[in-house]
Amino acid sequence: MSFDTLRFEGGRLELIDQRILPGKIEYPVYDNASAIADAIRSMVVRGAPAIGCAAACGIAVEAMRLSHLESGEFLSKMEQAFSVLAKSRPTAVNLFWALDRMREAMKKGKIPSEIAATLEAEAKSIVRRDVEDNLAMGKHGAELVPEGARIVTYCNAGALATAGHGTALGVIRSARDRKISVYACETRPLLQGARLTSWELSMEKIPVTLICDSMAGYLMQKGEIDIAIVGADRVAANGDVANKIGTYTLAVLAKRHGIPFYVACPISTIDAKTPTGFEIPIEERDASEVRGYRDVEWAADVPVRNPA
Amino acid sequence: MSFDTLRFEGGRLELIDQRILPGKIEYPVYDNASAIADAIRSMVVRGAPAIGCAAACGIAVEAMRLSHLESGEFLSKMEQAFSVLAKSRPTAVNLFWALDRMREAMKKGKIPSEIAATLEAEAKSIVRRDVEDNLAMGKHGAELVPEGARIVTYCNAGALATAGHGTALGVIRSARDRKISVYACETRPLLQGARLTSWELSMEKIPVTLICDSMAGYLMQKGEIDIAIVGADRVAANGDVANKIGTYTLAVLAKRHGIPFYVACPISTIDAKTPTGFEIPIEERDASEVRGYRDVEWAADVPVRNPA
Repeated sequence: MSFDTLRFEGGRLELIDQRILPGKIEYPVYDNASAIADAIRSMVVRGAPAIGCAAACGIAVEAMRLSHLESGEFLSKMEQAFSVLAKSRPTAVNLFWALDRMREAMKKGKIPSEIAATLEAEAKSIVRRDVEDNLAMGKHGAELVPEGARIVTYCNAGALATAGHGTALGVIRSARDRKISVYACETRPLLQGARLTSWELSMEKIPVTLICDSMAGYLMQKGEIDIAIVGADRVAANGDVANKIGTYTLAVLAKRHGIPFYVACPISTIDAKTPTGFEIPIEERDASEVRGYRDVEWAADVPVRNPA
Repeated sequence: MSFDTLRFEGGRLELIDQRILPGKIEYPVYDNASAIADAIRSMVVRGAPAIGCAAACGIAVEAMRLSHLESGEFLSKMEQAFSVLAKSRPTAVNLFWALDRMREAMKKGKIPSEIAATLEAEAKSIVRRDVEDNLAMGKHGAELVPEGARIVTYCNAGALATAGHGTALGVIRSARDRKISVYACETRPLLQGARLTSWELSMEKIPVTLICDSMAGYLMQKGEIDIAIVGADRVAANGDVANKIGTYTLAVLAKRHGIPFYVACPISTIDAKTPTGFEIPIEERDASEVRGYRDVEWAADVPVRNPA
């Protein structure tokens, strides 16, 4: 891998800015929880596992920044940090899972400096564990990938969506010796497939072909796709999966064509508290994302739905 | 209607340049068949019925331009005009239907000037007839639209895709008093839904909401769509329909959710010579259409499929 999704060291978090990839590679630096919540909201960092890691680091960064305060003020400000991070994005449950783990870890320290050290260690453990989980998932998942499989994937569930290796792309990476090839759906409106997935796979020299989201059905009908593998933002207790908008369409198409459809995700994506997919909150984002892209606007003023 | 899709007068054809709508309204002027074939290929004009009308005008324009030639040279150059127009785009059968009609009309004249006059009259008749057909289709189709229907459509099957009124949007226009509302799929890669359909409907004050192609499945699952209406590039003898890529996906989704799916098209779109949809040629267009839009490129170098 020639890039890190996130780097957490010395009380500072660096995040690769995924909004401007692959044209520019920049690592803005964050030294407080509120700025990290903004980075999650604005999708500097995205992908359920990576959001969880960033949130954990956000808590640790804040604790290290505030460790000189007296205990009452420290705990009160830490509550604010938990609150602002919890509000950053609604769908990915890994965010809440990571915050729960950090809250649990806080109990192990007594004074602010001790708590901050505990939280730093816990955040690093979450990040390290995410990579380990992905490697394990990749190894297991690769067994499900037939030799020569033409795989369709949606959005980016790669190294960039995690602390490394990736969930769906982790499986694909681990299956690379099976002469596989990948169709990356571009994933409107924010084009994570076009910008991130095709970039990651190109760098790894795994054959990838970019398609518009509208083309997957045609390719399935023509018999040009063998399996589908995607990541997840949340899995409800009944097995319903929420992932980037458009994943559902891909699943309906796969069912129609008898194509196996796999979801690769860590345990932290499973949410036993949410009974079915209908209770998973789906974010509505800004209309400008649908009316154009970056500096180009192709539809002005028209009302928009932008579930994400 | 506050615009004309095409204007044919005095041996010249003007076409509204659909590639730059709605930002700019321009009517480039064409005075020969080869230039009109280029306009069809580059999608200055698009939409199966409009392509048929433009091709008919292309033949008439060429005949009027060449009517001073002696008969043998005239007929030979007219053959070239038929050939270059027939190669302009492969999927829409209205193109070939219109060329057949023009070829039939040629038989009614003897000398070049007489043939040219006949072809001019025939092209104008095809254009006039297209509007009449659309109005009739709209009237009949509107009866299928329930009061208050939330309608999803794909690409642009509006006034712009025809000589006026539109096929799918013709039905929607004719049903406007039924308190309907429309979801326009943006239709990547060339965004005919975002640019053209939402513009046409906004001008007519028919409530329209723009969505990415990836969002239609989600809205169907949430029960927010009642019917689907689309146009067609070609209907095979067995009833299979070809239309802009992505239409198939919308049809699979509609089936999955028990949503009525209607195709509005004139008889000229029905191709009795093609047995099934699998024999309908589907165009592969340039990779640059998928790698970005206009001046913005979000994926460079990566291989692309671009069936259209």
